[in-house]
Order: sequence, then C-alpha cells, then structure tokens
Amino acid sequence: MRHVGIVGIGQTPVGTWVDRTLSDLAVASLRSAMQDAGADSVQALYIGNMLSGQLQRQENLGALIADAAGLRGMPSVKIEAGCAAGGAALHMGVLAVAAGVYDTVAVIGVEKMAGYPVGDVLAALATAGALDEAAHGLTCAGLNALIMRRYMYEYSWRHDDFAAFSINAHRNAVTNSNAMFRRPLTLEEYRTARLIADPLTLLDSSPICDGAAAVILCSADAARHFRHKPVRITASAVATDTVALHDRSDILWPRAVYASAKAAYGQAGRSPQDIDLFELHDAFSITAALSLEASGFAEKGAGVRLAQDGAIALKGSIPICTFGGLKARGHPVGASGLYQAVEAVMQLRADAGNNQVEGARIAMIQSIAGSGSFVATHILEV
Amino acid sequence: MRHVGIVGIGQTPVGTWVDRTLSDLAVASLRSAMQDAGADSVQALYIGNMLSGQLQRQENLGALIADAAGLRGMPSVKIEAGCAAGGAALHMGVLAVAAGVYDTVAVIGVEKMAGYPVGDVLAALATAGALDEAAHGLTCAGLNALIMRRYMYEYSWRHDDFAAFSINAHRNAVTNSNAMFRRPLTLEEYRTARLIADPLTLLDSSPICDGAAAVILCSADAARHFRHKPVRITASAVATDTVALHDRSDILWPRAVYASAKAAYGQAGRSPQDIDLFELHDAFSITAALSLEASGFAEKGAGVRLAQDGAIALKGSIPICTFGGLKARGHPVGASGLYQAVEAVMQLRADAGNNQVEGARIAMIQSIAGSGSFVATHILEV
Repeated sequence: MRHVGIVGIGQTPVGTWVDRTLSDLAVASLRSAMQDAGADSVQALYIGNMLSGQLQRQENLGALIADAAGLRGMPSVKIEAGCAAGGAALHMGVLAVAAGVYDTVAVIGVEKMAGYPVGDVLAALATAGALDEAAHGLTCAGLNALIMRRYMYEYSWRHDDFAAFSINAHRNAVTNSNAMFRRPLTLEEYRTARLIADPLTLLDSSPICDGAAAVILCSADAARHFRHKPVRITASAVATDTVALHDRSDILWPRAVYASAKAAYGQAGRSPQDIDLFELHDAFSITAALSLEASGFAEKGAGVRLAQDGAIALKGSIPICTFGGLKARGHPVGASGLYQAVEAVMQLRADAGNNQVEGARIAMIQSIAGSGSFVATHILEV
Repeated sequence: MRHVGIVGIGQTPVGTWVDRTLSDLAVASLRSAMQDAGADSVQALYIGNMLSGQLQRQENLGALIADAAGLRGMPSVKIEAGCAAGGAALHMGVLAVAAGVYDTVAVIGVEKMAGYPVGDVLAALATAGALDEAAHGLTCAGLNALIMRRYMYEYSWRHDDFAAFSINAHRNAVTNSNAMFRRPLTLEEYRTARLIADPLTLLDSSPICDGAAAVILCSADAARHFRHKPVRITASAVATDTVALHDRSDILWPRAVYASAKAAYGQAGRSPQDIDLFELHDAFSITAALSLEASGFAEKGAGVRLAQDGAIALKGSIPICTFGGLKARGHPVGASGLYQAVEAVMQLRADAGNNQVEGARIAMIQSIAGSGSFVATHILEV
C-alpha cells in the first residue's frame, strides 16, 4: 500500500447555522483545507454525511458539492456510515490514494441537523440503529442510557463519576474558536442537568448542530507540492458489530471498537502506550469510557477512572477531546470524524495553541456509529 | 494500481418483493456471488444504495448487511451516489482491492422501492436532483421529459422513433429469468402507452422495483483461489456534472457521461470501436440515446438511429441492455450498477445463454445519477 498523508486541514465553526446550506458549509471547509495545503486543486472528493437525504431531502452529495465548490466534473462520492460517516469517508479517501489512482484528494465531512423539529432529527439519527429497536422508541440517547445503566450496575459507578468526561471536554473547548460550547462546566451544573434518558442527562450528551471539516490527502510522492510536511496516516481500519444492541452478548464490550483499534495498532506497528492523544467519539460520556476500554487504555469497567484521575487532560497520559470533543466542540454527525482528523493534525503540527499536547507525535482518532455497530480508527504520525 | 478482477456474481430476480427486507435481498445476492466464486469468505463489503434512509428509515447499511450476512465484524461501508450508487460502490470496491489493503471484497447493490406510496418514492428519487428544481415539482421523469422534448425539437425526432429502445430491452428480457418484465413489447403498445410527463410515457420509463446484485472482486494474486478465471476490470472512472439541469449550457450533452467514458477508454487503452457490448443506464429511453452519443458510439443527435438500425440488438454492432436493461430487467436504483456488472460478466464468460453476444470479450457498463450529474463507467475484459 502506498503511503498517504494529510497536507491540508479546514473546518467551519460548529454551531446552529440555519442560514447556511449544506453546500456552503462543505465548500467553506474544503477551501480552507486547500488554502492550508497550498493546493490549487485536487483530483477527487469523498464526502462523509449521514442525514442529508432525510433532513435536507438532498442526496447525490458527491455531484452537489463538487459543483458548489467550483470543481464541476470532478470524481466525487458520498460515503454513509451513520454517525461515523466522517471516519468512513476518511478511510475511503485513504484507499483511493493508496490505490495509486489519485495523488491528491479531499475528504469532507458535513452535516446540518439544526433548525429541524427535534423529533425529526432524533428519528433520523435512530436510522443508524436497528429498526426493531427504533420502533420501540429507542433513540440514540435511549440506547446509550441502557448501556450506561448497565455499566453503573456492573462496576458500581455513580452518575457523578462520569462528570469528569464532560468537564474535560468543556474545559478544552474554551480555547477552541471553532467549538460550539466555549464555557467551562462545573460539577454542580453536571449534577443538576436535565435528564434525557435515565441515567443520561443533557450534559452527558453531544449537541444537535451543523458543521463541516475537511482534509487534503496526498501520496508520499506528491507531498513536495504542498506547504506542510504531511502528517502520515499509518493506520486506517474499519470494523462492524451487530446493529441491534439486543443482539450483543455483552453490551459493555464494543467489539467493533476493539477490532478496529486492534487492526489499527497492527497496521501502524503501535500499541496504546505509544498514543500521545486520542480523539475519541464521546457522543455520550459512557461512549468515551467504553472507547477507552476497548481501545486498550483501561481495563473493562475502569475507563471512568482515567477521567477522574485526570489522565484524559491535556497534560495527562492519554489526552482526549483536546479541542472539546463531540460533547463541547460539537457533533455534526457525518462531520465529526473529519473534525477529529483536523484537530489531530493541529496537535501533530504543534499548532494547537492553548490546546497543545506537548510533544505529541502519534495521535489516534476514532469514529463510532450505531452504539458501536460501525467503527473507523485511524492513527496519524509525524 | 494493482489489477482487479471479478470472480463471482450473484443476483436476485428484480420485482416487487414486499415480503423481503433490504437485508434479505442483499444477503441473497451476496451468498449467490460467493457460491459462484467458490469463496468461503471475503475481507470487506461495499454497499451501493440510495433510498434506505428515506424509504426504510434505515441507514448504517454497512454494519446492517455485514451482520445479516453472518459476517459480523467485517469492514463494510455504504456508498451513495443517487441512482448510480451501484456504479459508485463498484468503483470504491475496485479502489479498495487496488490499494492492496484487501485481496477479496464483495460489492453489493441493493434497493427496495416497491410497496411505498408512489409519491413518496418519486420524492425520494428526486433527492438525486437539485432542491430548487424538485421544489417546482420536477421529478426524475419530469427532468428527462424536458431533455427528451428538447432532443426531439433539435434533431427532428418523433416520439415513435424512441420505440426501438424499449422494444429491444423487452425482447432481451424475455429470456432473462431475473428480469421484471419478461414479455415482448409491440410498437402499438409503445405508441398507446400512458403519458407520464410529456413526451415521456410509461414505456419510456424504467419501473419502481426491488432487487440486489453482487460481485466478488479480487486481486490478480488471489485469483487462483476461485472457481472462475477473473473478468478483469480494466477501467473504473467516475465523473460529475451540475446537479441542476438549468445550470447546464447544453442539456443534450451529458458532460459527465463523456468525461467518465473518456477516462475509462484512457485507462483501458480502448476506444468505442473495441466495445463488444454496453450495459448503459436506460432509466428513460432518452437516457439511452444520450449515453450512446456522449460515450462515443453515435454523433450528437444520432443515438436514436442506432436503435432504429438494430445496432443495439444482440447481433448488432453495439448491443445494449442485453438482459433487458433498466427498462425491462428493472431498475432498483442503487442495485442497477451491480446488475450491469453481473450481466457483463455473464457475457464475457460466454455464459449468457439465449442472451449471448457472440464472441464478446470487452464490455462497458455505465451507471448514471441525477440526469447525468454523477456517472461511473467501467470496462470489463477477458
């Protein structure tokens, strides 16, 4: 396989942008990434998106966004993998360059969720899960509430014990100008937050929001044409699990997280000890805990302790959500995997300002869909 | 780029299968393709589908279908590109094998459209087009009616002149046990068919239907493990054009068809004269005419003549729709690109029975979305 690197990054602020179209957001992030790379053009686009058909009533985003970007005619394909569509699109972009078909491509993640009736958005998000569970009213929050309740029961954690995940995310978002929630969170606020699905509260949950992020990928040969030394993608691994939660033998062990992380470590020749920072998929605080465990950073049931001990902080042993994560930077679902990539590149370029993880050389990013049914894990290195 | 070939093919009959789920259809086609290849397993799945989010309220098909197929855990990604999702998925599968990441993958196209209110299906299909045109009530048929009317005006063709496309398609479907419409069509029936969008009639149009088709792709090195000598994929090219018809300088010149065919000829080192059969995207009879022209088989405005002269028949100079095409085999939209691949392989294996194109060694297949806004063209050779 040819080596593939990231030479450009772009992102729009995450928020509720009812006056900006899906195309506007995607094109803004693409232009920013091309400018960052010093690229006049690219050879193909890969678009990560989940909800455009259901919410905007717009499919065929490959053609739509190429056209809107002034790249009419360009090969351009949409990838869908639930809330992990961004990670999946990054994976497909890596394959396209690795195949030797293209030397330079852009991968864009874009999602617009704000401004629609909340019930419509939740129903659309639930299409990443199993129809028979959705039919019983199980939203994404509902499914993760079941997981969180079981986790608390099995390992004797209290709801308060998860606060450190949300507090860490909000703390890091304060100095991220692209984050949706740029304010610190107190334990008291966390404790008194509105219940969403017992035991999950609003402050365990990532927000409904809009955004787009993009990266420019290139082959090792093409790297000399760009302004930045490439951040190498040393692993790109996808795995799946049952879509229905009730089909899993252990809902506290996300097998696709384990499998994709294991495959990624194998590809990169790395182990959890080598990872300097981990942009994980904290759609809910429980998801962060399980991701840390199944990715090899904590024993089963002990992911919460990493948050409580401060290991997940910028100066900790395994920093996560270094720009706010899904919780506080925001989770425009199909875009989140690309925000993670952009933020990891900023860290590895030592260009993260107040959010810098000192000496970061190896970053892992992980995008999860459907309560763990689809997972994409990438390792990035300088 | 590594060489990629097709070693297994599978398909379900096209029809209105209200009692079979999306997963059922996809898994049936996959199993059939694996059996044909003599493959115990594959390493990844690529799923072409357009409408599952809107009609079945189910996304995240990568995980869903891997799970349903008993391949739980396997890397599996959904590709969406309107009615060309099948061609786009085939393209991504080719890239995945070419990249050297996988030696054997399956590409599945699947769609379920029957059994829903027709208005819902047409609205869902219209999401492959431009929102501002859809908002004025322009369905796929409406857009193609505008194109057909303009074509008739510019080149002085009458509606009757298009009959030969539909008659050819139906004739070839009679001996295809997987086709939806297995009966010949008369000129009189064509003439008296119900008007859909002037001048388009029901018999210019492909049907709303369900189906799935699949191929097993492998690298040249892995080919020895399978029952069949691989059919080589010598070209895999994608191009885009404006999504809105009103943004095109000439609605009778589908630039993405031209661009993807030209790129495919370049990759394969072939020209239109070399192509023994062409499975094109006859969603409407006018689409067949334009595809023949922009792919280099006829002068502008002269595509219709190829049908009238019998050049498109099994014994003609450029056979099309050799198993009935989208018109008569049927057009389960995200699956059609894979049906084309399956049928082309049958031709190149000299395994097409009564539908055989004698001496076929080079086939071209082409999948089109959004009135030409996204096009995938592949060339297959033995």
